[in-house]
Parts: sequence; structure tokens; C-alpha cells
Amino acid sequence: MIIMNADATSEQITDVVKEIRKYGLRADVSRGAYRTVIGLVGDETRIPFDHFATLPGVKEAMMVDTPYKLISREYNKQYNTEEQPFVVKAGNLKIGGDEPVYIAGPCAIESKEQLFRIAEGVKKAGAHILRGGIFKPRTSVHSFQGLGARGPEEAKEALSWLRDAGNRFEMPVITEVRGENQVDLVSEYVDILQIGARNMYDQDLLVKAANTNKPILYKRHFGAGIEEFLSFAEYIAAEGNKNIILCERGILPVGKGRSYTRYVLDVGAVPAIQKETYLPVMIDPSHAAGRRDLIFSMSCAAVAAGACGLLIEVHYNPSEALVDGSQMITPDELKDTVDACQRIHQAIKFRKN
Amino acid sequence: MIIMNADATSEQITDVVKEIRKYGLRADVSRGAYRTVIGLVGDETRIPFDHFATLPGVKEAMMVDTPYKLISREYNKQYNTEEQPFVVKAGNLKIGGDEPVYIAGPCAIESKEQLFRIAEGVKKAGAHILRGGIFKPRTSVHSFQGLGARGPEEAKEALSWLRDAGNRFEMPVITEVRGENQVDLVSEYVDILQIGARNMYDQDLLVKAANTNKPILYKRHFGAGIEEFLSFAEYIAAEGNKNIILCERGILPVGKGRSYTRYVLDVGAVPAIQKETYLPVMIDPSHAAGRRDLIFSMSCAAVAAGACGLLIEVHYNPSEALVDGSQMITPDELKDTVDACQRIHQAIKFRKN
Amino acid sequence: MIIMNADATSEQITDVVKEIRKYGLRADVSRGAYRTVIGLVGDETRIPFDHFATLPGVKEAMMVDTPYKLISREYNKQYNTEEQPFVVKAGNLKIGGDEPVYIAGPCAIESKEQLFRIAEGVKKAGAHILRGGIFKPRTSVHSFQGLGARGPEEAKEALSWLRDAGNRFEMPVITEVRGENQVDLVSEYVDILQIGARNMYDQDLLVKAANTNKPILYKRHFGAGIEEFLSFAEYIAAEGNKNIILCERGILPVGKGRSYTRYVLDVGAVPAIQKETYLPVMIDPSHAAGRRDLIFSMSCAAVAAGACGLLIEVHYNPSEALVDGSQMITPDELKDTVDACQRIHQAIKFRKN
Amino acid sequence: MIIMNADATSEQITDVVKEIRKYGLRADVSRGAYRTVIGLVGDETRIPFDHFATLPGVKEAMMVDTPYKLISREYNKQYNTEEQPFVVKAGNLKIGGDEPVYIAGPCAIESKEQLFRIAEGVKKAGAHILRGGIFKPRTSVHSFQGLGARGPEEAKEALSWLRDAGNRFEMPVITEVRGENQVDLVSEYVDILQIGARNMYDQDLLVKAANTNKPILYKRHFGAGIEEFLSFAEYIAAEGNKNIILCERGILPVGKGRSYTRYVLDVGAVPAIQKETYLPVMIDPSHAAGRRDLIFSMSCAAVAAGACGLLIEVHYNPSEALVDGSQMITPDELKDTVDACQRIHQAIKFRKN
Repeated sequence: MIIMNADATSEQITDVVKEIRKYGLRADVSRGAYRTVIGLVGDETRIPFDHFATLPGVKEAMMVDTPYKLISREYNKQYNTEEQPFVVKAGNLKIGGDEPVYIAGPCAIESKEQLFRIAEGVKKAGAHILRGGIFKPRTSVHSFQGLGARGPEEAKEALSWLRDAGNRFEMPVITEVRGENQVDLVSEYVDILQIGARNMYDQDLLVKAANTNKPILYKRHFGAGIEEFLSFAEYIAAEGNKNIILCERGILPVGKGRSYTRYVLDVGAVPAIQKETYLPVMIDPSHAAGRRDLIFSMSCAAVAAGACGLLIEVHYNPSEALVDGSQMITPDELKDTVDACQRIHQAIKFRKN
Repeated sequence: MIIMNADATSEQITDVVKEIRKYGLRADVSRGAYRTVIGLVGDETRIPFDHFATLPGVKEAMMVDTPYKLISREYNKQYNTEEQPFVVKAGNLKIGGDEPVYIAGPCAIESKEQLFRIAEGVKKAGAHILRGGIFKPRTSVHSFQGLGARGPEEAKEALSWLRDAGNRFEMPVITEVRGENQVDLVSEYVDILQIGARNMYDQDLLVKAANTNKPILYKRHFGAGIEEFLSFAEYIAAEGNKNIILCERGILPVGKGRSYTRYVLDVGAVPAIQKETYLPVMIDPSHAAGRRDLIFSMSCAAVAAGACGLLIEVHYNPSEALVDGSQMITPDELKDTVDACQRIHQAIKFRKN
Repeated sequence: MIIMNADATSEQITDVVKEIRKYGLRADVSRGAYRTVIGLVGDETRIPFDHFATLPGVKEAMMVDTPYKLISREYNKQYNTEEQPFVVKAGNLKIGGDEPVYIAGPCAIESKEQLFRIAEGVKKAGAHILRGGIFKPRTSVHSFQGLGARGPEEAKEALSWLRDAGNRFEMPVITEVRGENQVDLVSEYVDILQIGARNMYDQDLLVKAANTNKPILYKRHFGAGIEEFLSFAEYIAAEGNKNIILCERGILPVGKGRSYTRYVLDVGAVPAIQKETYLPVMIDPSHAAGRRDLIFSMSCAAVAAGACGLLIEVHYNPSEALVDGSQMITPDELKDTVDACQRIHQAIKFRKN
Repeated sequence: MIIMNADATSEQITDVVKEIRKYGLRADVSRGAYRTVIGLVGDETRIPFDHFATLPGVKEAMMVDTPYKLISREYNKQYNTEEQPFVVKAGNLKIGGDEPVYIAGPCAIESKEQLFRIAEGVKKAGAHILRGGIFKPRTSVHSFQGLGARGPEEAKEALSWLRDAGNRFEMPVITEVRGENQVDLVSEYVDILQIGARNMYDQDLLVKAANTNKPILYKRHFGAGIEEFLSFAEYIAAEGNKNIILCERGILPVGKGRSYTRYVLDVGAVPAIQKETYLPVMIDPSHAAGRRDLIFSMSCAAVAAGACGLLIEVHYNPSEALVDGSQMITPDELKDTVDACQRIHQAIKFRKN
């Protein structure tokens, strides 16, 4: 839609209409009491709105249509039915189906023994998928960057532990890829690729990861609006890969003074995103909270809001962990959390029946 | 705590220490490898940190202690027991006790008939407290500002309807006061005073309202950090009124593009605030969502996170409402919401037992 | 404009059109390739868009027109001329004319002697208007709240000092009103009323202040978008008072970690607001910076961006000040700042000639 | 610094002290009136504060020291002198010296002819360095992604045009690298590598780019605090490359409604960053504004604030540009802008002499 200035001339209006036609769309001119608005009839994704905003007499130019048609619920009615919801499959697991899925494991893999011990713990606690970080994005140059930072051999070794632990405890496995160059290697070993919040805008990584055809757990950036998040998820879908699991992990806090959570968990994003897209939406309470004593409550809230699953960092001894110890919980605490979430899930499901 | 520059001189350090003593505190000088840090021993609330930040050689000056001691959990151990939690009483109702409390009613009172019809509806749906707006804060000068804007007689009449509806359907009643001048009048009629998000910083209103000794439902500003919110709640407590119900109603969204909820519900603020203060914390999902189709999910999330209650806008015909129709639900939808929230509350309570 | 869902039925479209007519506007239906968009022909300010957003089949409802017509440049061509720009007058001073106007004085008035000494200093330094706080909005309940907090007599006394200092040093005077109840008293003494950032949304205060017909220096809230700021300024204009000086004083910072300025000075807001409204726009670098060593640079930036003036806090000995010492500069530093700003103003003016 | 809970036990305090010693630091225990604070004596960058925050009895754990020592002014006194300021050299050009440096060119290179025509224009207008985008980060998957997206040969060809244009018009050249894989290729052709805002957190890219030893123009992410920005710049310096030019390009706007600039130019970040680091700081007004009619004012503000240069997008016919036409200015407008900025620079320089 093109909104003209109140004093736009007829020539300016005509010029805009001509310009619209160049892109193969039809213009629908509506002369209001104060100003003229020009609607676009056709595929708006072909229109460079930035360019139109620069034409003489134009006040504002904006897309009315959905910028993420491939993943939108409105344009993909086939996935709207209760009977046949859209699910992402990882092995035998269905993500986005009737039951919440719990992904758990250490923030960073430190050793084979550490990983196996945690894997066993989370399996017993009710987790379905095993996570473990190998390439860690860190704020400080001096922090532990994950075993992947030590070299390709160390990366492969850690990946093989993750694969083995998944096989041993019968869970699909997931790890984060932080750059294009890690995609080929990592996808040899894992069932799901994770793209972290800081890489949300990395279109090269999105394209590369999409082309593995593996399911992708895709996290929202802490400074991204929902529309923007979905528009970037469209990059993955545009490569023909719709096995996308969206994940909210907290946005930037507002205001002065302490906020007491590392980020703000945008729990309303879960039902809001579910209205917009058929893709499943998860929550990562660990990064949102940044402190372990809030994980239980924030997990409960996430499942109550309708999240299709949780991504939780777990360590048998959080105080010993090399990375993010403050936000990890123990396997026992995970069990307590999963149990409560399951009761909550039943409480909500009850409504549907 | 005063952090000195790496190149601060001994004289500068000595001067800061002297200045601290002027305020009756003791200084504890710690010379680090790179810089000196000066701890303050005594009541830090007496220290003007802004002033200390201006002294020569000072890099940073900040309060280590809690700026909201009167309402902090840490400094009021008497309220920390499971057996005797702190509750705010409105009539026979206990807010902050074992059971969630549901406050419901129209955004704005439009007529006696409208109010009574809604009051009857919300009572049947399970609400405990009746709300109804008389003085409405609105963004546009041309919108309906509530019956209170029509003059003192209209305000009184609307207040008396609210009182009568409360009596008739046996619910305490609450309405918002938007300025100091409304406090005396409103407190004659209602059981709880509401201070809205836009007035969070209005210290004159806080003091005036506190002195009625009525319970105060106090909403967080959409641009305020949690520490700031609690620091302003301290204004109320400092007047000797601890009957404060804190309420999270959504903060500013981040990022470009559409966010699909009017505000971001900071659900993690519920458990985070509960760690900091003994005061009860509620959630207002209506303003956070700004759209009725998300109220159910966001209410469930709020109760799952441990909120002591909900504040929900209800209308028998939202499309007819003069204000905020887009975010109001019907009494039937309220019943559905309350029922689910009660099931969720049981699911969480189960853990404690 | 009403944007319909892609699957909206003809009946739904017809119903929306009927509803639009109820409000006296005409509907212009544009059927696109994917969805229908309905334009509104007439005065959009009469439309409750919230209500329309709730109608069946509606995806989005939004105002296309300017929500602040009274103060908009587009709707008030008479003020668009270079020859006869819109200016706000305070005594003989013109704000918004050819020359920048400097408002300076202490954050809080502490004594008659303090005020007169500072007044003399700022006059010599080149200031045109004298400021001094009497009713101070403060974050902490224990801080100095200004002499106005001590009682009505103390408030009157401080106001009379301000008046006297203005007369003595031939400068119009300005102080902040923090609530409706202070307006009558304050407007007896001062030439310009200031409405602070925290009160930006206080419509009762806006209306009350507007009706004094005094010029009003109106500050943007630190969490307010520009459109929202201008929409609230419309409250003042709607009372028939267009003597409004807009003032940007910094918005909330983003991101994690220290930001090193108290707020973020939105310097681009100056030219952006000037395109939207004919009202003059000032900058308050003191509150934006929160530290005195950045005032010079931020003042220069403000004038270079085209601000019609500055509001700067000054104290002969900032370290002694009871409030905001960290952000006040000395009269000598003010002179240095004003001199540089005047050179910059010439540098820009040069372009116009 | 470790802040203990008010009720921390002696054992807990002792345990924290022991833990500190494990990392080779000394603990300085300060028992306050209400709580104990433990200072750290030694190199705080070796301390995992996250881990300490999880120890029993700990309320808060934070670094007091600067997390970016390599680039901090405080720790590198050798660059603090007026006589010998730190400058980044590109060919014969000094960035961060006495005179502002203007970088200009098209947002995206479209053809050799387009680039040469613009290069000639910006040179005449007073630019010192030529920019041109080859790998473009874009929000929509359907937009023009730059010639680099068409394949390696097209990328090389565009890079060689850039090199040739730089040689022909005697300007060093700069282009953005969007990922690790582009670094080797790009650094063969250009004098300065640009790392864009969306890649600010991409530590792999930072390390790779740093190792070229080329100067790096490093942009602040729109959601990053200043401390965070500088902490990530430390990644580059840690590789031994201090040829870093910091660049502010706008942060996320706050509030509801339209903001009228694409981002908020944090002009106060210029002097604030200059106090913290000796590295030069530039401003990119084009991306901050997002609209060409504000570039002049925002450029003036930037230079007035003390920026060491500007990065401006230029096109001889912005309406024809494939990318970001709305924010590009013409060579003539650039000349007007540079001329005004130079006059402003003189106006400020005058003060120093």
C-alpha cells in the first residue's frame, strides 16, 4: 500500500501508478477526504517498498500482505486441521503434535563422561532429545568457547560422543551450528541443527543449514520482532525445508535498574506465533531466565501458554560447569519440572476434549 | 560501593573516604590489582550516589543494598514462612494466599445496566472481585475517556453503580485513580484502588493513595525495570500502607515489524518478583495481549508461573464496547479461562504437597 | 484502513462497510490478489480502530491519517513558510525562530542565594531563560524532593525567588509542574510551565496546564515513540493552546551491560519531528547524558541537528548540589558550550543563505 | 565483586573465598552493616562470574574491572596524549586524527558504470574513502542480495571494479564481509573490511577478519549496549589487530507507534565511547535515518558530537537504486553535507585551540 501526502499532485499519483505497473501489479487508487491511498493488486513481495517510499509525493509505502507466505497458516490451509497438524519429525519423535517434547542436556559438552552421565539423567527425568553445545557463542573472548574451538579433531570427537550418547540412551541429538563452515561436519552426526539467537539474521547460515534437509531448531534473536523472526524463518522454507522448529528464548529487558532475569521471556509470542504459522514453537527457559531458581516456573508458564516443548540446560553439578552454570538445573530438578509440565499439559488438553 | 579509576591518587581515595564519613557511614577500602574499590558500611540509602559519582577519581558509584527494604523479602523474614504468608485482604478475600484471585469486569463502565449484566456474568464465571473503569487513560484526545470525564456528578453516579453491583453480587470492587484529585472521591466507594501503568512514577498519587489505607493494585509501567518498579512501590509502603498488590501488564516490545501482541507479558517477572518481595503479584493479560484470542493462553501461563491472580477485562458483547473491545472476552470465555487456570493451579500445588 | 483476512467472506466485508458508514465515513473496497483492503473516506479520528479490529474477518485495522492534525505541518500550511515560521513567545523571546534559545539553571532550587548566584552565572554565560526545579520527580523515596515537597509556603517562597531572579537578571523563568494541583500556583509566578517526561501521559495535567495559556515545555517520555509523543501533545493543542515547545531528553537504552549514558539522546528525533510538526523542538542534554563530561558534545550535536534550543542544568559547584550533581555543569562550562553552539549554528545557517 | 545475601553464613563466605583463591586471586572481605561484599584482588577476567553467582549465599557476582582492557583508554595511557593520538591508517589516510574522514558510495554495487559514476561524484564532493556493497544482508529472502550472491565469479568481478574505482579516483576502498568464507577473497581487493551490525556477535568472523591485519570498520549491533560492543571489539584486538574503527549506526527505537527514523542514532555514544577507548568512532547516518531527508542534519550532529568520520550511502539517482534507495543521497547533497560538517568541525576545533 502506498499512502500519499495530503498535498500530492495528480501527476505524482499517476507516476506512482505507472511505477507499480512496471512490477506487474495493478494499482487501486482510493481518494480519501484528506489524502490518496494506492492499493496494490498482485504479488506484493515483488515490490521494493523502500524504492516506492522515495518517489515524489509518497508519505509511506508498506507491505499489506504477509512477508512469510511459505510458513503462514493463512496461506497453507492444508495444515490447519486439528486432525492432521503439521509436525516436525526427528526419528520417531513428533514435534508439534499432541505431546510436549523436552530437549535437555548440558550447555557445553566438557567430556565424554560428563555427557553420558547427564544423558542418562535427563533420559530418566523424561527428556526426549539430548542437547549438548560444542561450538559456543560467548560474550567474552577469554571464556570457554566449547570443545569445537580447540580444533577440528576435538570437534569431531565431541560430536561422536553426542551421537553415541543419543544412540545409547535412545534420544535424537541436537547441537548448535555457529557458522556455515560447521554445517557439513555437524550434520553428519546430529538429528537436528540448532541456529542460535545471535545467528538469527545470518542468511548464509540459514540457507546452508536448510539444504541439509535436517530439522532446524531456530531461535529468535533477543532484539527481533515476531514479524521479523518469521520473515527470516522464510529463508529456510524458501530452500524447500519446512522442518523448522521455532524457539523463543527471551528478548531484551526494558527500563533502568536490575531486571532479575537475564532476558524477558515473551510467553505471549507462543500463541501469537501459532496464529501466524503452522510451524511448532518451543521455549528455552534457561537462557531467558539466566538463573536456575526460575526455570521451574518459567517452564510451567511455557507449557501452559501452549509451547510444543522446552529446551532446558541440565548438569549433575551446575556449580562445576564450565559454561552457564548459573542457569542449569540438575536431572532431579528436570524431573520435577517435566512432571509439573505434564500435569499442566493435561489441564489444558482437558479443555479441548 | 565506590569504584575508583585505575589511576586514582591516594588523595582522591582519602577524599572519598572522608566524604562517606560525613554521611555517618564507614568506608572499607579494598586495593585491587588494578583499581581500588571502597565499600560502604552502614545505611546506604542515606548516600547520594549521584554526588559521589562526581568526585575526582571516581569511576562508578552504586548502591549494593536493596533500595526497597520495606517490601523486600530479605529484610522481612517474618513473612517468609510457608505457614503464614503475607496476604492483602479485601473484605473476606485474601490476595496472595493459597488460591488465585480473579478480578474481572468491563474496561469502562458505560451504563448501570451494562455493568450489572457484566457483574452477574463474571460472578457466575468464577470471578472474586469486580472491576470497572471510570477514569480512563487514553492515547487519543478524541476517544471515550470514561464517564468520569463527563464531570463530578457522572463520576459519582458511576462509582455508586460499581458499589451497588459489588454489593449485589457479593464482590469487592476496584477502579483506577488517574490523579491525586480522584483519590478521596473514589476511596469512598471502592475496596481497592488501582494505580495504572502510566501513573507508576506519579509519587504524589502514590502517597495520596497510600494514605487511604485501602489495598492498592499497583501496575508496572511498560518501560520500567523490575528494580525500579519495586523502588516506587516503596513509596506506598513508606506511608505505612503495605496492602500492595503488584501487577505486571506487559512491557514495550522490541525489534522491527509487527509484534502481534500489544505489549510483551514479562511472565518471568512473577517468580523473579516473588523472590524479591513478600507482596503478592498479579498479571493483567488483557492489556499485555491487546487481543482477545490470546487471553486464554496468557492467563494459563500467568497462573502456571505462580501469579496470585488475574485481572481480566470482560464484556458480554466486546464488539459493542466503547473502549478496548479488541481485548475483552465474554463471561463464557472467562469461565473457560478460570476453569483452566484452576486446573493448572492444582497441577502446580500438587508439587508442593 | 481495514485489512481483511485472505479468507474473509463477502458477508464479512459487507458488514465492515456497513459499520464504517455508521460513523459517517465512506468505504472504499479494494480487492487484491490475495486479500481485500478497505479504505476509509472521511475523518478517521472518529473511527474506533480497536473496535474494528474485533469484527469477524478483520486482520488489521489502522489509522492512515495523522493522529495529530492540530499540530501537524501537513495540515497547517500557514506555518510552513520560511518567512513566517511558527514561534512560541516568552516575553520578548522567540523560541523556534532564527536563533537558538538556551534555558539554564539549577536542577533543584536549594536557597535564594544559590539560585541568584547561578542565575547571574548563566546570564553571563549567554542563557536566555532561567530554570529551577521546585517540585522534583525522584526515583527514591528517601531523596531530596525539592523545596515544594516541604509544604505550600516553602513552594511559594521558592517560586517567588525564581520570579525575582528572573526579573533581576532579565530572563523569563520556567519550572516543572508535576501534578494538576500545582498548576494554578506555579502559573502565577513563571512564564513557561514544564511538563516532565514522567508526566508525558498525564492527560489531566496536560489539559490543566494548557488552559493557563502559558507556553508549555513538553518533554518526551523515555519509553514513548515519536508518533505517540505528538499524539499526546495534541491534548494541549486541543485546548486551544499551541504555545508548545517539544523537548527530547533521552530514551531508554537497549542491550546488556553498561551504556555509559543515562539515556539515549535521540538526536534524529529533532529533524524527524520538524518534518511532522511546526512546533519548535528543543533538547535537554543534561538528563540524556546523566554525566557532566558529555554535555558539551551532546549540546553541540543537538544544535547541529537543528534543535531550536537547549535546556541545561547548571550549578556553580555541582559536587555540592542536592540533586543530580553528576549531570550539572558550571557557568564557565555553560559559556564554553553556548559559544560552541553559536559557532555551529552559524555553520549551519550558512547553508541556508 | 561478590555480594552476599544478608543472611549468608560464615561458612558460605569462607567457601566463596576459597573458590576465589582457586583462580589465583585474592579475596578482600568487607562486612557491611547489612551484608558482606567480597572484593577480588587480581585479574578478574579469569573469574567465571556465572559460576560464582551459583554458589550458596551469593546474591550477585559481577566484574568490577573493564572487560575490554586491550582497547581501553584507561589501560593504554600511551594513546592518551593529544600530541600522539591513536589513528588507524588506510593508505595515506589517517582515521581518528585531526580531520574527519568521509566514506561514501552506493549501498550496493550494481554495475561497473554505476560504481564509477558514483565514485567520481563522491570524490568531487569531498569523500576520502569509497564504499560499495557486494554481499548485502537483507531482511527479505526475495530482495536483491548484492552481486556477491550470484556466485564467486560475479563477486570477484564486483570486487575488481571496486579496486579499480578506488585506484582511478585515489581513494582507499571498503566493503562488507558477511561471513568467514568471504574474508580471504575480499581482503585481496579492499583496504578496509567492514563488519556489519548484524554480524557484531559473530566471533568467528571477527577472528578471521582480524587476522588479515587489515583495518576493520566494526559496527555496533542495533540491540547491543556500549559495554557489550566494546567487549566484542576486544575479540579483534585479542588477535593482535588494533586497526579497529568503531561505528555507531543506530539502535532499536522504543515505544508504540511510528518512530519516523529507521533506527535511533545514539549520538551520545560517540563521546561516551571516546572516554572508554582510544579507538576512533564513526557514525553511519544513512542506516540510522533510513530516509534521505534526515541525512544532512544527522551528519551535522555526528561531527558536532566529535565523530571521526561518516559513512554515507550515495547514488546519482536514488530512486533507481536496487537497495536502500530511500536512504541514499546524491553526490551534490553529499557535497552540501561534507561542507557543513567541515564548518562544524572548525567550530568545535576552535575550542581546543
